[in-house]
This record gives sequence, C-alpha cells and structure tokens, in this order.
Amino acid sequence: MKRTEKRIQSSLDAFNVIGETDEGIQRIAYTHNEKEAQVLFAYLCKKEGMDIKVDAVGNVIARRQGRFRNAPAVAIGSHVDTVYTGGRFDGIAGVVAGLEVVRRLNEKNIRTDYPVEIIAFTSEESSRFGMSTIGSKAMTGKLSIEQAVKQRDKDGVSLAEAMKNYNFEIDNVKEAVRSKAELHSFLELHIEQGPELEKQNKKIAIATGIAAPTRLRVGVKGMAAHSGTTSMDNRKDALIAASQLVIMVEKFAQEESLHKTVATVGVFDVFPGAMNVIPGNVEFNVDIRGLNSASKHRIVECINNEAKILEASRGVDIDVDMIGDEQPVLLDEDIRQVLLDSCKDLGIEPMVFPSGAGHDAMNMQSICPTGLIFVPSHKGISHNPKEYTAIEDIALGCDLLEKCVLELSIEREISNAKTSG
Amino acid sequence: MKRTEKRIQSSLDAFNVIGETDEGIQRIAYTHNEKEAQVLFAYLCKKEGMDIKVDAVGNVIARRQGRFRNAPAVAIGSHVDTVYTGGRFDGIAGVVAGLEVVRRLNEKNIRTDYPVEIIAFTSEESSRFGMSTIGSKAMTGKLSIEQAVKQRDKDGVSLAEAMKNYNFEIDNVKEAVRSKAELHSFLELHIEQGPELEKQNKKIAIATGIAAPTRLRVGVKGMAAHSGTTSMDNRKDALIAASQLVIMVEKFAQEESLHKTVATVGVFDVFPGAMNVIPGNVEFNVDIRGLNSASKHRIVECINNEAKILEASRGVDIDVDMIGDEQPVLLDEDIRQVLLDSCKDLGIEPMVFPSGAGHDAMNMQSICPTGLIFVPSHKGISHNPKEYTAIEDIALGCDLLEKCVLELSIEREISNAKTSG
Repeated sequence: MKRTEKRIQSSLDAFNVIGETDEGIQRIAYTHNEKEAQVLFAYLCKKEGMDIKVDAVGNVIARRQGRFRNAPAVAIGSHVDTVYTGGRFDGIAGVVAGLEVVRRLNEKNIRTDYPVEIIAFTSEESSRFGMSTIGSKAMTGKLSIEQAVKQRDKDGVSLAEAMKNYNFEIDNVKEAVRSKAELHSFLELHIEQGPELEKQNKKIAIATGIAAPTRLRVGVKGMAAHSGTTSMDNRKDALIAASQLVIMVEKFAQEESLHKTVATVGVFDVFPGAMNVIPGNVEFNVDIRGLNSASKHRIVECINNEAKILEASRGVDIDVDMIGDEQPVLLDEDIRQVLLDSCKDLGIEPMVFPSGAGHDAMNMQSICPTGLIFVPSHKGISHNPKEYTAIEDIALGCDLLEKCVLELSIEREISNAKTSG
Repeated sequence: MKRTEKRIQSSLDAFNVIGETDEGIQRIAYTHNEKEAQVLFAYLCKKEGMDIKVDAVGNVIARRQGRFRNAPAVAIGSHVDTVYTGGRFDGIAGVVAGLEVVRRLNEKNIRTDYPVEIIAFTSEESSRFGMSTIGSKAMTGKLSIEQAVKQRDKDGVSLAEAMKNYNFEIDNVKEAVRSKAELHSFLELHIEQGPELEKQNKKIAIATGIAAPTRLRVGVKGMAAHSGTTSMDNRKDALIAASQLVIMVEKFAQEESLHKTVATVGVFDVFPGAMNVIPGNVEFNVDIRGLNSASKHRIVECINNEAKILEASRGVDIDVDMIGDEQPVLLDEDIRQVLLDSCKDLGIEPMVFPSGAGHDAMNMQSICPTGLIFVPSHKGISHNPKEYTAIEDIALGCDLLEKCVLELSIEREISNAKTSG
C-alpha cells in the first residue's frame, strides 16, 4: 500500500471507530456519534493548519487560506453521518478525501490563490428525520424553520429539538446560509452506491446530475380489535391493507423501469404493535427516485388510485401525503469539463452518468458551480455494513480532486476562461 | 343508577385513572402503571378487612378469612394490566367484580365456611412479551425460568429483567406456585370481547372452554441497500416478501372459517426502518386461535409452505419458529352447573359457548375447578379505547358471582354433592 493510501485508510479507520456496532456504523444525524465525528474532523483539520468554523446548524467548515484572503473559496466536502446500519465509506470517504487533498497541498508547500475549504456537512442521511441533506439545505437557504419543527424522528423528537440538544437554535438557521460570493466552486467525492463502475471495470465516474426524491407519507387506519375474539370477516386490519399497498408500490415502480425510476418503502410502523391486537394503524413512507419527474409522478398517481381501491374493498381509511417532491438537479457543465480534462491528464477514463442518490452537491449547485465524483462500490452495496470501496480507488479519486482544486483555485484574468475549454 | 352500580362504576373509574392516555388505557405488564393499579387493589381490599399477599411474581392475593381458617379458598380474579391502547373493562371489570362481591358479603355480615379470595393477576396481556397470562402461569407452575429469560419486549428487555425491576427474582418463580389443596375453586368474570351476547340480546354467557393460541415468530431476511441506487430488479426487499406472507396468513385463516379459527399478525417490525434504505429484515408474529388444534396446525403448515415459495421466488431467507402451541382448555363441568343453576335462580337466561380469547381461568383450571362468566361487549370491540360494557351488566355478573361464591364456600359433607346436580 502506498504511503498516501495508508494515510487515507488510517483516517477512515479513525472515523469508523465512532459509531461502530455489530450491525455496521451508526452515526445518526444530531446524535453524539455524529458530533464526535465532527470533532475529530475539526481536530484533524486544525492539525493541518486550517481555520475551523461551526455554522448555525452544525456544519463544520475548515479553511486553508489562499493568497487572496477574501477571495471565494474552492470547497470540497461531504458528510460524516450514516444510516442506522451504515457502511464505512458513504459520506466519510468524501470528507477524508478532502483532508487528503489538503495534506498533499501542505506537503508540497503549495499556496493557492483562492482559499480551499473542506466542509463536513451535518445530517445528510434522511434516516432519522425523513429529510435528507439537512446541513447543505441550511447552507443554501433551503431549510425552513417550519420544516425543522414539523419533521420528527420515530420517538417524536423534531429536528428543531434535536438541534437544540447541541445548542443550535432553529431560529438562527438563516445564519448558516452562505452567499454566492463566498464560494468559487464545490467538489464532492462520494462512493457510487451502485454497481455500474465495477461492472464496466472503471474507477471514476463524473455525475451529470442528481435524481432527487419524491416522498410520500401514507397512513392506513383500520380498527384495532382483539385477535382472538374477532372473526376473520369482521375485521378492518390496517396491516393487511398496508401490505397490499406496499406490494403495489413495487409493481408500479417496475412498470416505470424504462425510466429507471425506483420506489421503496423503508419506514413501516404498525400500531399498536401487540401480539393479541389486530393492527388499527399503519404508517409508512414511500421514497420514489428518478431523473424523470413525470415518471415519478405517475407512480404517485398509481399509489393514490390504489389507496382508493383499498379503502373501498377493505373499509379502511388511507391518507397519502406528499412530504417532498424535489426536482432532479443538473450539475455545472464547466466544472464537469475541468473534471474530464483532469481525468485525461491523469490517464483516467471516466464514466459519465447521473446519480441515483441525493447528495449535498445537489444543494451546493444552487449557490456555486458544483461537481460530483464517484468511486466504485463493490457489488453496488451501500447503506449496509458490507459497503466496500478499495483504498486505491479512493486514492485515485483524491488525485483527481487535487488536480481540480489546483486548477480551480488559481485566479484568472478572464474568470473560468480555461475551465470552459 | 343503583347504589351497587355506582360503587362498581366508581371503583372502575379509580383504576382507569391509572394509565389513561389519549389513545386509551395503558397499564403494561411490569410497568409502573400496572404496579400502581395493584397497589390500589391492595388498598381497596385492605379497607374491606382482607389480608394481602404479593406472591413471588407480583400477583396480589387478597383473602377474606372464613370459618375454617385452613380450608381451601374460593377465589375470584382477573387482571389489572392492559394492552398498549386498551379499554376500561378488559381485566379490571373482573377484579372490581371480585371486590363488589366481598363488599356485599361484608355489608350482609356473611361469614363463609371457606375463605374467599380475590386475585389480581399480573401480566395477563401478551402485548409486551408476546406471552400471555404470565401471573396465572406462574401460580399454576407453567412459567419456566428459561421462558422468562428468553421472552423479550421490543426494547430487548427480558421478562426476567422486567420482573427484577420490581424486585421479583425469576429464580424464585416456583414460590408463586399454589397447591391444589389451597384452592377450592376459581371464578373469573370477564367482558366477552366478542359480539355474540349483544347480538342475541343476552346478558350472561358461561364459557365451556378456552381457545388457546398457537404462535409463530417469523423472520424474513433480505438485503439492506440504498433506496436510490439499487434498481428494482436487483433487490431483496424483506418488506415486500413479508407483506406477501402477511396477506397469505389472512387467506389461510379464511380457509379455516368452518372451524372459526382466526390468525393475526399484530407485531410487525421492519429493519433498519429508514426512509432511504431498502428493508433488510422484517420480524413478525402470527397469533393463531381456535378450538380446533388440527385447524390451527393446518394454518401453520400453509405458512411454512408459503415461506418456502417466497424464499425461492424472492431470494430471501425466512425462518418460522413456533413460540407457543397451547391446547384448548375445557372448564370444569361441576362449576358450570353451579353457574347455570345460579342463573336459573336469578332469572338469567345465559348463553353457553367457548371463549375465543385466552384468560387466566385457563391456567387456574389445571389446579382447581374453574368457571368463566362473560358479560356483554358493545359491538364486540375490545383491546381498543372504544371497549364498552354497561355497568348494569357488570352488576348482574356480580349477582351471579356472589351467588356462586356463597354456594361454593359452604362446607358440605359430601364434597360437591350439590354442585353436580
């Protein structure tokens, strides 16, 4: 293993001590584990001589000053939080890649014109609050106080309350917003979380855009009753109706396979949840993703129709609420060209495709030109302890990141003249 | 409202202040609410001059001494615990009925030959630990230390640990066992939890037997993966497979409608339970009830076969464990005759049918002759805040209980001579 690979490995390992469980890594949004990982991040950045700032929602911004102190920064970033039973790469690989780039700049005594930042976003995963990329939403002015009060975890704790536990006041959320003048560009390295790179035996993909999710909250209301004394023909079992709807969600998504739209029920709670009580209520979420909004909306329509059919046939009440309907995001073409040119210089043949998963990059694109680099995921497995990316693949991603950061952080007479050709 | 009805109402209300929530009454096994209700029970019995004993698992036994101090007792009892969103009658109606009978004996200055007991059993509902009638199981020697360590609630707390929280040591469980010599007979009054009495416009039913449950624990194992990057044809979604199995459980039970066998999935947990993760595991319980064991076992066989079909078609692993297989219990015929004769004397025309739900009476039958009285449930609704039984119906049940207790607590030359004719 090369020296830089060892360094990457050892930083990843240091983060993955935090939240390690028998069922994977668990660093949930606004929990002690996430905050501990951010403290470690700040410590490692400080060791590299960077200035540390924690913003009003808990994003950690580490800054390496450039020649021009007030120039816009070239930022690299990703997140340190994970899903409940997460892997060792999702999010943290991009944060460690940022660190690695800065370490290389320091070793080589390179002084950039523009400042270089590493951003460790808070709460990218939607696992806890059913809302993703909370940190980058806040930074780009997309997080409202209303939402933060409304979104609750399974214990009923609102996002605003969870933030307050760490002394972040939701009323100050606007203080986290950064202006377009502060950021020159943003680059994120992330594991692919899909099998395409490995299938094609490629090492790097440049994302063209990001498929944002459309999300539904479904409530099925039947009638709780004693499981022993209620005959089969006298029941309004919310679980049976919900099960039928879940099976149809899969079918509707399969019918949209042409557009590669996917739909998933990941959260599914049955109430009262007792051995001897027929379920009276089921609440579940549907996560619909794709690059084609019309295809996503057809699935929503099918679910609404099916809900009406089940209401009639099973005597239950079904509410379908759309809790999110994000538009697919197109990433900056100039940045993509810089990434492609850099690949060429490094002898990398990249793939170019859109991202099926949401990333902090999709929010950052709204305030500065943004690029997203994928490195391979073994078998495409992610959000799972079996998630795996080879260290040499992350190191190659760092080579590409480093080259782009150098290219982007030089002041030019005509802004972006080189980057567009 | 008659004076005795008012007294019954006011006692019920006193208990139902404990654990009252917006979604019904919640006095879960081995929680503070259950224990508080038992303390209230002990207080009210003490006021009636009874001796109080708490046994090794937390059953509360109140004793009204008779003429012959060491004679076997005529016991009346039921439970004070409830399901998570329970009603105001299930269990507690029988405990209050016992109190009412003793109050009447005291008012009338009646001295019985045999002692009269009221037993407030602990943990009759299976909601928390997936095991029912824990208190009466312990009293009749049917609760093993092994089971108590194995049965866990949704937070992973074992029954033994929950008991220990209230200073009941599972190692002492055998101390709760009562000998046949201690009890002359046992009577339980309970709400029907079914619609039959109301449908027939009758006020009292005498149970012939009790349909005990057969219970399965089913684990479905798929593959957790990212909901955005995993194509529909590349998934092993544990929730979809589990949903298909749940729907078949309903179908298999419907096919046994001739035997009135019912099957219910009340507990159904999805892991990891995050918006953006395809479910990797689902665990659920099946509660199968009926008076015909062969019919129950046919449903188990169908579920096992369906699990194999789903394993093959969906690439998931499904484990089906039988965690309980109780036999239907026949209640004592002599006691039933005493109940029927007493009804006749009181001008009540009772119905006679088996119980679809399990009750503490089914365990007590194994150590002493036992009878079970039902009073009407409005619309058959139970395990639900809408559970309702008219106070005059409970009062009529108390008349019957009182008459039987007097009949059973008189010493006879030839034991049970009157009761068998």
